[in-house]
Amino acid sequence: MNDFGHDGFGLADLPLRDALRGQTPYGAPQLEVPAALNTNENPYPPSPRLAEAVGRAVAAAATGLNRYPDRDAPKLRAALADYLGHGLDTSNVWAANGSNEVLQQILQAFGGPGRKAMGFEPSYSMHPIIARGSGTEWVPVPRAPDFAVDVAAAVAAVEEHRPSVVFLTSPNNPTGTALPLATVEAVARVAPGVVVVDEAYAEFRREGTPSALSLLPSLPRVIVSRTMSKAFALAGARLGYLAAHPAVVDALQLVRLPYHLSAVTQAVAVTALEHAEELLGAVDRLRAERDALVDWLRGHGFAVADSDANFVLFGRFEDRSAVFEGMLERGVLIREVGPPEWLRVTVGTPEEMSAFRAALLEVTGRA
Amino acid sequence: MNDFGHDGFGLADLPLRDALRGQTPYGAPQLEVPAALNTNENPYPPSPRLAEAVGRAVAAAATGLNRYPDRDAPKLRAALADYLGHGLDTSNVWAANGSNEVLQQILQAFGGPGRKAMGFEPSYSMHPIIARGSGTEWVPVPRAPDFAVDVAAAVAAVEEHRPSVVFLTSPNNPTGTALPLATVEAVARVAPGVVVVDEAYAEFRREGTPSALSLLPSLPRVIVSRTMSKAFALAGARLGYLAAHPAVVDALQLVRLPYHLSAVTQAVAVTALEHAEELLGAVDRLRAERDALVDWLRGHGFAVADSDANFVLFGRFEDRSAVFEGMLERGVLIREVGPPEWLRVTVGTPEEMSAFRAALLEVTGRA
Repeated sequence: MNDFGHDGFGLADLPLRDALRGQTPYGAPQLEVPAALNTNENPYPPSPRLAEAVGRAVAAAATGLNRYPDRDAPKLRAALADYLGHGLDTSNVWAANGSNEVLQQILQAFGGPGRKAMGFEPSYSMHPIIARGSGTEWVPVPRAPDFAVDVAAAVAAVEEHRPSVVFLTSPNNPTGTALPLATVEAVARVAPGVVVVDEAYAEFRREGTPSALSLLPSLPRVIVSRTMSKAFALAGARLGYLAAHPAVVDALQLVRLPYHLSAVTQAVAVTALEHAEELLGAVDRLRAERDALVDWLRGHGFAVADSDANFVLFGRFEDRSAVFEGMLERGVLIREVGPPEWLRVTVGTPEEMSAFRAALLEVTGRA
Repeated sequence: MNDFGHDGFGLADLPLRDALRGQTPYGAPQLEVPAALNTNENPYPPSPRLAEAVGRAVAAAATGLNRYPDRDAPKLRAALADYLGHGLDTSNVWAANGSNEVLQQILQAFGGPGRKAMGFEPSYSMHPIIARGSGTEWVPVPRAPDFAVDVAAAVAAVEEHRPSVVFLTSPNNPTGTALPLATVEAVARVAPGVVVVDEAYAEFRREGTPSALSLLPSLPRVIVSRTMSKAFALAGARLGYLAAHPAVVDALQLVRLPYHLSAVTQAVAVTALEHAEELLGAVDRLRAERDALVDWLRGHGFAVADSDANFVLFGRFEDRSAVFEGMLERGVLIREVGPPEWLRVTVGTPEEMSAFRAALLEVTGRA
């Protein structure tokens, strides 16, 4: 640090918004550990063949980087629609730098001061952060003890608060809980605004678990958000997207920053979609590993939430921080998130899960 | 378009924020024309050698894309600080997807409902859009007839309105007008909040025109925003950044979306900075072309604002739309922006400027 740091000037001397005073930046620790099982990343990197293809696509795009990107990203949106199926096309799809930016744009269009957004907690902690950041009041509704969304309670809460934006999550982070379509439908039928079904982990759901994509033709205020960070193993490329009625996509163009999605990001994502089969190839392995992990945890007497995702919420621990720290000392980084007595672990490679199991038995004394 | 478009459901059926009703998306037309001189792009693309280097850097990054990017982008920020000089280091620099996102983060941190942002118009039209999008009231103050910022009027306006954020621009878009440092200093001394000096076009300034970077050590609430879109010829890569006191950088981490800057974008920008000499090589040519254009326009009796940028504001036309359309018919796309009787043209290649001059003489009958 240069001289700037030593002048006594600090955050308190800046006109920070009142709501931000005393806050700390959001984000899991980025630590170098043998087993990083804390941010629900896909442990399988793109193959050298795909990395080369991505490099070639970007080299080609780079010869035109002096020009602004196509603001509407039609090729990428068409490829995403094609991947999703369900009769969707370019007009139904919108993309941004990670699904957080997609969600931020939704709040900028449909939330704001004097409006409410609702979620069913415990859930993804960025939802309230993004809502409040847009000046939208956050209304949390508790989930049932098994982490399901109680339909009657949800409908009653929507009718009472009349939120402009409702967040549903399927599967839910950090619990892994998927939603029956009937829940989405019931909420959407009474919601006065838009209903966002955050399906960031959709590709990992178990056989027979539905996606809300099938509801889009009949419920035009439902928005399904997705990401290439998880199943597509592209967390580093930052590509989130949504599927919705074309009117929703039109609305988001009123708030998106112009040229928000770089020509490079568009090229990388299109190339990845051309190699979808390879990238998604690990999904079945991860699902099997997840199911085995759930069985193993239950076999050792841990409580485990049913999971349709690439992570598992398990417990219960009187002092979960001690468990978290004990795991970290053994090179296994998990996440202290969700309800107080629970911990979340991302499903990694077989080697990482071995390390996780060995460490957990040691730390909890159940070996 | 599929069946979705034919169900009668539209924007009016969505809970759009009131402020967005009736709006249209921001952005210049993206048309295929022989001479696109409308968005202040650099006409010189990266060389094949640089495009290959970018491709190789991204191919290398791609092997780790299953992991989230480094949230703090330390390597990129260090390279940007090194480029800027002035004793700055990583702690002074912050980067995002285009300077629009940098400015949005500044408003999210320091603006908001009940607060004001001020700018001196005509100026960059995204400033009020981003301010209002964050719920911040926009206070426009008019520039002098020669597009300069009148210091006494600026100081008086700041003292009257007490804005949390003041935007200064040097050089200003769309007029090309640079600011004396004394103006920045005078405004910063009375401003109760942050003063953003938008220097998107700084590298094009004429000999002797200063940058506000030299003010940072003595004025810790001054923020200088920059971009790689213009001089660096990287509009397609979307990399904006700022230099400021480390406390400002700390504040922005409270509002940035986690992992907002992809590993790919970081790799592309770092590679471009390693090739800064090549990319900036065209700047001198563009400055000479700009000065020649100003002389030529004045020689033909047009009014021209002094320009320190890679564009020129010229006029005056009773019906500027007719001139704009006439130019477009001749394959020259310029920009209908700024004060009513003026038009803006980006400085392109010698061939593009020939086409511009020929078309303008025809359209205005001054041939």
